[in-house]
Amino acid sequence: MSDDVITELAVHDVRFPTSRTLAGSDALNLDPDYSATYVVVRVGEDGPSGHGLAFTNGRGNEICVTAVEALRHHVVGRSLSGIFDDLNGFWRSLVRDTQLRWLGPEKGIMHMATAAIVNAVWDLEAKRQGLPMWKLLADMPPEQLIAAVEWSYLSDALTPEQALDLLRERREGMAEREEVLRRTGLPAYTTSAGWLGYGDDQMVELAREALDEGFTHLKMKVGGDPDDDLRRARLLREVIGPDNTLMMDANQRWDVGEAITRMRGLAEVRPWWIEEPTNPDDVLGHARIAEAIDPIVVATGENAHNRVMFKQLLQAGGMGIVQIDACRVAGVNEVLGVLLLAAAFDKPVCPHAGGVGLCEYVQHLAAFDYLCLSGTQEGRLVEYVDHLHEHFVDPVVAEGGRYRTPLEPGYSVELHPESITRYSFPHGAEWTTS
Amino acid sequence: MSDDVITELAVHDVRFPTSRTLAGSDALNLDPDYSATYVVVRVGEDGPSGHGLAFTNGRGNEICVTAVEALRHHVVGRSLSGIFDDLNGFWRSLVRDTQLRWLGPEKGIMHMATAAIVNAVWDLEAKRQGLPMWKLLADMPPEQLIAAVEWSYLSDALTPEQALDLLRERREGMAEREEVLRRTGLPAYTTSAGWLGYGDDQMVELAREALDEGFTHLKMKVGGDPDDDLRRARLLREVIGPDNTLMMDANQRWDVGEAITRMRGLAEVRPWWIEEPTNPDDVLGHARIAEAIDPIVVATGENAHNRVMFKQLLQAGGMGIVQIDACRVAGVNEVLGVLLLAAAFDKPVCPHAGGVGLCEYVQHLAAFDYLCLSGTQEGRLVEYVDHLHEHFVDPVVAEGGRYRTPLEPGYSVELHPESITRYSFPHGAEWTTS
Repeated sequence: MSDDVITELAVHDVRFPTSRTLAGSDALNLDPDYSATYVVVRVGEDGPSGHGLAFTNGRGNEICVTAVEALRHHVVGRSLSGIFDDLNGFWRSLVRDTQLRWLGPEKGIMHMATAAIVNAVWDLEAKRQGLPMWKLLADMPPEQLIAAVEWSYLSDALTPEQALDLLRERREGMAEREEVLRRTGLPAYTTSAGWLGYGDDQMVELAREALDEGFTHLKMKVGGDPDDDLRRARLLREVIGPDNTLMMDANQRWDVGEAITRMRGLAEVRPWWIEEPTNPDDVLGHARIAEAIDPIVVATGENAHNRVMFKQLLQAGGMGIVQIDACRVAGVNEVLGVLLLAAAFDKPVCPHAGGVGLCEYVQHLAAFDYLCLSGTQEGRLVEYVDHLHEHFVDPVVAEGGRYRTPLEPGYSVELHPESITRYSFPHGAEWTTS
Repeated sequence: MSDDVITELAVHDVRFPTSRTLAGSDALNLDPDYSATYVVVRVGEDGPSGHGLAFTNGRGNEICVTAVEALRHHVVGRSLSGIFDDLNGFWRSLVRDTQLRWLGPEKGIMHMATAAIVNAVWDLEAKRQGLPMWKLLADMPPEQLIAAVEWSYLSDALTPEQALDLLRERREGMAEREEVLRRTGLPAYTTSAGWLGYGDDQMVELAREALDEGFTHLKMKVGGDPDDDLRRARLLREVIGPDNTLMMDANQRWDVGEAITRMRGLAEVRPWWIEEPTNPDDVLGHARIAEAIDPIVVATGENAHNRVMFKQLLQAGGMGIVQIDACRVAGVNEVLGVLLLAAAFDKPVCPHAGGVGLCEYVQHLAAFDYLCLSGTQEGRLVEYVDHLHEHFVDPVVAEGGRYRTPLEPGYSVELHPESITRYSFPHGAEWTTS
């Protein structure tokens, strides 16, 4: 069993200087350097390695690295089979560390560091079994999936017994769906055209390119000057025509009343959803906005920091689209809980992606959701941004506006060793020679 | 103006080995080592220094220290007068750092690190003016207080104009109240008796001591075995008699339904409040519990991570007692916003204290609230725990169940240099010789 024990946990501070081009700029994130707190775990002496990351925006990535170090003693020395025999026990040992818990609880840097570790451990198991993450999850008995989730604080919305029933019911037709998935992949939408830092011409050109590539759903950033937002939105609607779908993202820019006013002003271009119209912690605010701007749907989740926030946003009617993120909540275990909540409340999951590694991650989560929970691709799209994929060993592939289903073993966020070296902060060549 | 520029920001990792005695143990924090991310700012070469801290539970304090370092560039080189001319501008520069913001936003480690810095800057200004913090705040024109608060995301509950009216209205009688404050201090309650790690005999003995010292309000920890909780609660009620007041603290132990059941089972001992009955992020859950267990009041706030959470808990009716914490939200600026919200919703403020330095901090906030907002001491108590005060240059003094009003300049959390040296982690004598 020596190759079953985790003997090593390494963590790297990897940063890509994306702020030099303003890709990824929005109303609140003006100059992101897409970065990763990158974790590698290893079993045995020459055993396989598992790779996980938490996405950050540049400065402060070193804080998240320090947080991973603080969690190391819960990981190194444990057996992988022991972890998978008691998945929630493992998760709790990280999240409920009796002293570290105060620093959250269950939010922010501690939770993101936990995500990087938890995801690396799942990646390792998937690689040992020779399965892509989505397939590892889909093949797990419903009982084991349920046992991976932390159920505390959820019982007023969903109990483990109800969730188990749901998973069992939805097994029907899974084999057929897997065949569809392998053949046709997953529907995607693109944010590449509509960044706030881009001029009108660049936006139009990129939108045309996206249409040519086969995208039918495009998202634009809003939250700037109202006239600018409307001009850009009209332009984009004109370019994509009446039959394609336009979505909007305000990146938390507005107060509650302002969000309502502003979205009424943009309703003429018929956006499907408005994403993060206000502060991500504001459950009651999201509910009020959703009620006021119907039929425009409120989408949120990339900054919903744990399962208790998702629970409330669903209970209150403030989350019409569930935008899970793979490494804001504490890794696969907590995402499973959120996917179960979304299914119980019958709300579509459209994962947040972009950044670095997020597309690689969430394709697996969306595939699992399709196979085991939603049972449909209708109204389910995965965000796609064509950026930084070249650094990954098994990058996502988008074709014709769809993600191709990943078939290599693991969770797909393993970086090329050269990329880690070159972009390590502050001593990598990219940071010392520029 | 050279003595107006902040030339130095030092940060220390200070930890007290409180887990050796189980003081401070509760349902979720089993073995805290009360710790401080301790910040010192200085102006000029031989100028005065300002001292602030963020309280943590031991492990992970180094992460918060790293977060302070990441914020240093927003502080060093700024003029103190410039900061106080635009208090919210200063706060925003820390909280809205375009790259660091992703790590919260506005929550967890980043927010706690910000609190330590912001509080140190206020301490420095109070010392330069020769005023205790409460007096610095009370003497500020209402316009300047309003200008210290970040108003985004609050307008659906309270606008700056409404808050300004409130502050102006409540000026009346302030001089008389200040006289009362200086003469009689502030009412306190004690948690010293009821820690979960203590046996029945120890609890009874400590409760008797507290009554002898003049306390009329005692709080006990609950959330253990139901029979144990009830036995301990009956015992405590018996010791304190029918006329004193008993409060309870569940430290987030229960799900929503469980909290309701458990508090109905404890209602016979007539607790005034139940504190943190469930997850601190669960706004809707707190509201449901509050409605179900009336007339027992729901108290929360020590883990409410920012003003948006306080806003919602008040809007939803889930926060009957507002338990502000001086360094979980981002320092004095954000606490001011929360105090204004509490006043607008007419809910009493009973600050969270204990730990290390929290009593020293919150006495100033409670005094300001009494002078400028609530106007009464009725139903307003400050938590008191008799622990670790000997490490402070100007420690709190409790007499006859009340805090004596602090009169020395500053915010009272300056540690003795010997305490910093001895308890610095990991190289201080306390950690190397034991």
